[in-house]
This record gives sequence, C-alpha cells and structure tokens, in this order.
Amino acid sequence: MDKLEALKRLFPGKVDLSESERLRHGKDEGYPEARPVLAVVYPEGVEDVQKALQWARAWGVAVIPFGAGTSLEGHLLPLGEAISLDFARMNRLLEVRPEDFLCVVEPGLTRKALNEALKGTGLFFPVDPGADATLGGMAATNASGTTTVRYGGMRPNVLALQVVLASGEVLELGRGVRKTSAGYDLKDLFIGSEGTLGVITRLTLRLHPLPEHVHTLRVFFPGVEEAALASYQVMASGLPVARLELLDELALRALNRYLGAGFPERPALFLEFHSSTKEALEAESALALTLMEEAGALAVEAAKTEEERKRQWEARHQAYWALVHLYPGHRFAITDVAVPLSRLPEMVRYAQGLLREMGLTGNILGHVGDGNFHTLVPVLPEDYPKAEAYAEALVRRALELGGTCTAEHGVGLRKKKYLPLEHGPALDWMRKLKALLDPEGLLNPGKVLDTP
Amino acid sequence: MDKLEALKRLFPGKVDLSESERLRHGKDEGYPEARPVLAVVYPEGVEDVQKALQWARAWGVAVIPFGAGTSLEGHLLPLGEAISLDFARMNRLLEVRPEDFLCVVEPGLTRKALNEALKGTGLFFPVDPGADATLGGMAATNASGTTTVRYGGMRPNVLALQVVLASGEVLELGRGVRKTSAGYDLKDLFIGSEGTLGVITRLTLRLHPLPEHVHTLRVFFPGVEEAALASYQVMASGLPVARLELLDELALRALNRYLGAGFPERPALFLEFHSSTKEALEAESALALTLMEEAGALAVEAAKTEEERKRQWEARHQAYWALVHLYPGHRFAITDVAVPLSRLPEMVRYAQGLLREMGLTGNILGHVGDGNFHTLVPVLPEDYPKAEAYAEALVRRALELGGTCTAEHGVGLRKKKYLPLEHGPALDWMRKLKALLDPEGLLNPGKVLDTP
Repeated sequence: MDKLEALKRLFPGKVDLSESERLRHGKDEGYPEARPVLAVVYPEGVEDVQKALQWARAWGVAVIPFGAGTSLEGHLLPLGEAISLDFARMNRLLEVRPEDFLCVVEPGLTRKALNEALKGTGLFFPVDPGADATLGGMAATNASGTTTVRYGGMRPNVLALQVVLASGEVLELGRGVRKTSAGYDLKDLFIGSEGTLGVITRLTLRLHPLPEHVHTLRVFFPGVEEAALASYQVMASGLPVARLELLDELALRALNRYLGAGFPERPALFLEFHSSTKEALEAESALALTLMEEAGALAVEAAKTEEERKRQWEARHQAYWALVHLYPGHRFAITDVAVPLSRLPEMVRYAQGLLREMGLTGNILGHVGDGNFHTLVPVLPEDYPKAEAYAEALVRRALELGGTCTAEHGVGLRKKKYLPLEHGPALDWMRKLKALLDPEGLLNPGKVLDTP
Repeated sequence: MDKLEALKRLFPGKVDLSESERLRHGKDEGYPEARPVLAVVYPEGVEDVQKALQWARAWGVAVIPFGAGTSLEGHLLPLGEAISLDFARMNRLLEVRPEDFLCVVEPGLTRKALNEALKGTGLFFPVDPGADATLGGMAATNASGTTTVRYGGMRPNVLALQVVLASGEVLELGRGVRKTSAGYDLKDLFIGSEGTLGVITRLTLRLHPLPEHVHTLRVFFPGVEEAALASYQVMASGLPVARLELLDELALRALNRYLGAGFPERPALFLEFHSSTKEALEAESALALTLMEEAGALAVEAAKTEEERKRQWEARHQAYWALVHLYPGHRFAITDVAVPLSRLPEMVRYAQGLLREMGLTGNILGHVGDGNFHTLVPVLPEDYPKAEAYAEALVRRALELGGTCTAEHGVGLRKKKYLPLEHGPALDWMRKLKALLDPEGLLNPGKVLDTP
C-alpha cells in the first residue's frame, strides 16, 4: 500500500486529492510561487491531528497546518513532499465565559466568525489583521492589526494553547488567567512559530469589553511625513488611542475606485478612540485634534454613524485588495517592517525617496502607532525582481535603525535571510529548539529556519 | 590552587567571602531557610559574567544571580555548592531614548532608582512589585504589581534582553520595537526563568508617558467579598483603571499602627485612574463610584494631594512589612495565586473560611483587577507547618478553579511541587529545555525544576 492509499484509509471522507485543492493549499496571498501539496487532510479533532502526524512520521512526509490561506510570506508553500492539514472542519467556538472575559475556540474559527458569535455578550476579540484569518493561523504568525496599539497582538490575547508535537504528544500551555509566573513560557514560544514547532489544536482567548463610546476620525495631511509626525505626537501624549493608521494618497485613490468611498485623496490618519464614558471620549478626541492640527492637519472628518465607522475600517482592511484592483495584470511586493517609534517619520521618508529613486510606484500603509508599516509595490511581472530589491533595501534600513524585519506578517520563506542580521548567535538557539521539538523536521520544514 | 583561590585571582576586588555576606546572599524575604553561598562575586560587566561561568564550568560549582534579595519562594537558596553573582555594581541606566519610549539598563538597577532617574522625561516604568527590586530580578521572576492591570507586567515591558548562557555565549534577544514576529520568542522564555536558563546582563525596557491626570481613591466595604465583587464590576465595565487593589481589615489595622496612616479599618479597594484629560478622568472616576456603590460601598475617600496619593501607594507597598511589625516573633507564610476573574469572590470567600476553620489569623491582599491575590499568615514558629498546609490548600483550590499556582512571585523552591498538576506533560518539555540550555545544571539548579 502506498502512502496516499494509507492516508485515505486513515481518514475516510477527510482527504482531498484534487489537483485544484492541492494547489490552493500550496500557496498564500503574498508569495509569488505556488506548488501543490501531496494531499489535503481535514482533521475533525485533536486525535485526527495525532493520526496525521503518526502517518507523517511513518512515511517521512511533512505536515503544513492551513488556516484561511491568507498569509503573505510563503508559509504554506511545500518545499518537498508535504500534506496540508486544513482546519476548516475544526472551526467551533467551544466555550464562552463572559464573566472571565475569555473564550475557547478551535483553530479553524475565523476572527470575524468569532466576533459575530460573541454578539450580545458585550465582549469582543480585538486582533484584526486585514484578512479574515483563522485564530489558529493568527496565533501561528503572531498576527496583529489596527487595534494592537491599544489591546496588544496575539501574545497577550492568547492565554492558553493546546498543541500537538511532531511526536504526537498533546501539550496544554498556559492557563485561563491574566497573570502567571509558573515555569517557562512555552505558550509564547509556540505563538509566532508558524507551524514549525507544533500544531495548534485549541486556543483560549482573552476577550475585552466592547467600548461604550467610540469616536472615529479621518485626518488629512499635506504629506505622508506630516501624518507620520502627527501620529508620533498622539502617541507621545499618552492618549489611549485604540486605532492609529496611516494611509497614503494612493491607498485612498484605490479605495475610492474600488469601494466608491469618496475619501479626500491626501495622506491620512484613520483614528479611533474607545472609552467607557462620553465625556472622556470627547475630551480625548479634542486633545488629539489639537495635537494633529499643530502637526499640520488640513482637514478632519468624523464618522457620524456606526455604519460610517464600520465602512471606514472595512475600507482600511480592504486597502490591499483595492490596490490590487487598481493595477490589473500586476504583481505586488509587500513589505512589513517596524522601527523604534521616533524613527517612523524618517523611515517613511526613506521609503518614499527610494520609490522615486528606483522609478517605482508604491503605497505606504501602516499601523503607525506601533512603528509598523507596510509598503505595497505593484509591478509588471518582468519587474518583480526590482520590487523585491526595493523591499530588501527597506528591511535592511529598518534593521539598521534598530527595527525588525517583520512586525506581524512573520518570516515564512521570504524573511529567513534577514534573521542572521536581526538575531545574531540567538538564531543558532532557534535551530536547536527546532531540532529538539521536531527532530525529524516534519513540521512545516524550511519556514522560519532553513532545513538543516 | 583551590577553587576559591582561583576565584579571587580571577576577580580581584570583586569577591566577598565573609560569613555574613555569604549568608545574606543565600536567603530571600519569604522562604523559611537560609544557607551560605560559597562566595559572592560582584561582576562589573558582561565579561565578568562570562568569566564567572567559565570558572563555574571548570570547578563544577553552580551560579545564582542575585538582584536585591527580595524574592519570596527560595530562589536564592543554594542547594549545593554555589556562588552568588550580585549585580550591585551593574546598576547603571545606560541609555534613555524618550522619543522611542524606551531605556536600556543594567540588571542591578532598581525600579525606584530607574523612575527617579527618569524624572523630567515625562516617562515612567510602571511595573511595581512591593519591594524595590532590581530590574534584572524582576525580569527573572516575571514580576508584576499594582499597575499591571493597566500597563502589563514584565513581559510586555521588557522589549529586549542580553543574556549569558551557561556556555558563556552572549545572546541578544528581542528588539527595541513594539511588535516583532521575526522567529521564535526566546526573550519571553528567559523572562520568568528565574536564573535557570541564563544570566540577564542588560534589559531594554518600554516606558510609558506619565499620566497628565490621576485620581486616587480608597473605597470601603462591609466585607472582603463585597470588595472583591465591586472590583469585578469595575473590570467588567471596561473602565481604564490603572490600579485596583484589595486590602482587608487586618492590613489596614497593621498600616495604621506601622505608619500612623489613619485608614478606616474596613475591607477596602484602593483604586487609581490615569488619564490624559481632566474631563475623562472625572467621568471615569464617577462611573467607577456608581458601580462600587451599587456593589455595597460604605464610604469613599479621595487623595486630595500628590503627597496623599504617594502615601496611599507607599502604604500599599508597605503592607507586608506592616504586618510583620504587627506580629513580632512570628513567621509568615505568603501565598500568591491567580484565578479566572469571575472566581475571585469565591476564592476570597474560600480563603477566609479556611482561615477560620484552621484557627489561623491571616490577611488577604491582592491585585484583584488581575484575579491575583496573596494571603499572609503570621504564625508562631512551631505552627509554621499549619500555615504551609493552609497555603497548600489555597493553591490546590486555585488550580481546581483553572488558576495558577503563582501569578507573580514565581516558582523558586516552594511551588515546584504544583507544576505537574498545572502543566501536565508540558513540564517534561521544560526539563528538556533546561537540559538543552544548561546541560551541566550550573544555573540556579533545583529552582523551577528539580535537578535531574
């Protein structure tokens, strides 16, 4: 019996061998390459994951966990023979404990489906990458989003994980409490490990009270640098800003075309304040406006209804697709860097200057309250190497300024080459940890670290 | 040449062999036992730490890093031959970058000295365990304090670490940025590892803007349970409370005697709100008061001056010593547990009932906004086993409720026995990590985990 036959017998009704599905599972939304996986398996519980790993060990085939397929750095591309473990059937909300501000979910549940299911509890899960990613995938890449400046990214919002190791062993990491100092922090080691150390099969998530009062603004500036500077002033004031996003002219133009949004086409900050009282909200918003006017703001628009507020953030989340739509037939090189907060205006200036210098068109978009921004460069297919050279220059500059090569998209295949520069000798210890936890190299091999 | 002779030659002017210092370094403030270390070494830089570890490997002697000696769970007690590495001479503030909201410090700097040095920058470092601990020690035990409910504990506030491994290798972990997803999270593995995986030699800390407006309250209740319930209501409201502390009658009586504080001797919540605007502050404080009145508050006192505010929090930090002072000739058993937020009132009721049942006097004190509280039981020396039995019952109950055996004091020697119950098979992997990073067992052996 060959390995695929064995796999089908092991998982009746849970294996897909079709060409289209095998290819769909071997690519993501950002990496310029796709390769089919050997097979797609749909586990329905932790035992299925254990069985899949047992099969993988027996046949020496790798396993790549798959959430929504929305990652960007080549996380899902098989480098050799690999099966995809698609968590689409493990997407249940297992438990909501509003009184403890937590819930327990399966990894295939998406962030939007979770927040939909939480309606009526007065609570929400804040982490919001652009895509409607799965919570397992978000933990695996240490995702963050527009609200991270206020609520944190995945690490503080994932209280506990169940993971299956390559050996098939099931571990419970962390507890459903807000603080613990009981031993080594294995939970955070698995968050951001991109499926290379273990397979996440359950998550305990921290929930937050829905803010009673919300104020949402769009503030427009003469240039991207002024906007970046204004965002720095807002952060320095200590204002409890809940969202602080930079969008450049090109992004707004793209959104106007794609969604008919009607935004002024000028560099902008999209902001939001959350508060438990109306008076606090008004005072805080007023102070923020003063600070931004001092930094050169030209115009301010406030969202007048909940509907308008939702449209504004949906537009922010759609910016990537709007840009893709604006450049048919193009390919897109996305970069994700973060720098120390004060270097953000300088970094944005560098990013703009380099675009001009290299004769490229490009877009700057970012979670600037965290010093984190993305560039998106549309190019004709034959110019892709040029766009990659641009991204590389940006990453190297961010590292020179004390920044990181990826704030939230993760390493995957694309950012591996920067890790020696970012981590120095610590990288060897990441390799040793990988060898300890996955000695046969079965778990998403070649991602984060090179295969030995 | 014997090992001590070799040590003295290696570190001229940096070794103390006196009986008193050797004993002072072999104990802490909470564990009921002291043993002298072999010698105390005062490193003056990372090279000294490397040299000490080289010596330790050559002679097979263990190394115990020492900050301020304020830990509570036996972290500093040598189990066999060990030297103490006292960081008193590595206590410099190396760099402040207010524009990046960060600073770089040596591990021997204390939290109070840091905040003193930050005066005039408009920034502060929030983590405040009761003691004036060193920042290296606070990272090693994953410390937290009264402001953790708003600003987080050590993990989110330590951006990067320099550590020396048992091998002498120097690693730089993390970056001075707010977000990174670049590889495995080794930084958080070393935070909370209690000197058992590596020696911390430098820390990059996240700083926060000093709040423009602060409102500090003391609210008194008929019973501890009502106070615990009120604290839960405040948390559920989503109010951005900056401090939320429970003190029982006994604590207030002790503080009145020790500091002449003049507090009403009734179970109390000590609260603080931080805001960037006066209006926000007033609105938030008013809402909090309404919630607490609904939960049965009897009386409210507000701190009218900055002086009074400081006295209130200094009193909170002195509660342990006030209680020690109230019971001369006694020994004290302290416990530190956290439970899911909604279980706090029930857990407090259990703690009180069990005191009565066992015929013990005891005190409840806690960071209740995080579901974390401590009991302190004064007993005559011959009754110490009874106090320990009480603490053990409390920990087991917390674990049954889904809590943790230690929220912030760490494992040390005392909490080791609970880790199998809290972590199950994950504990084996902590052992494997220890063996990987410290194969000869030289770094603070027997703490967190049993020596193999």
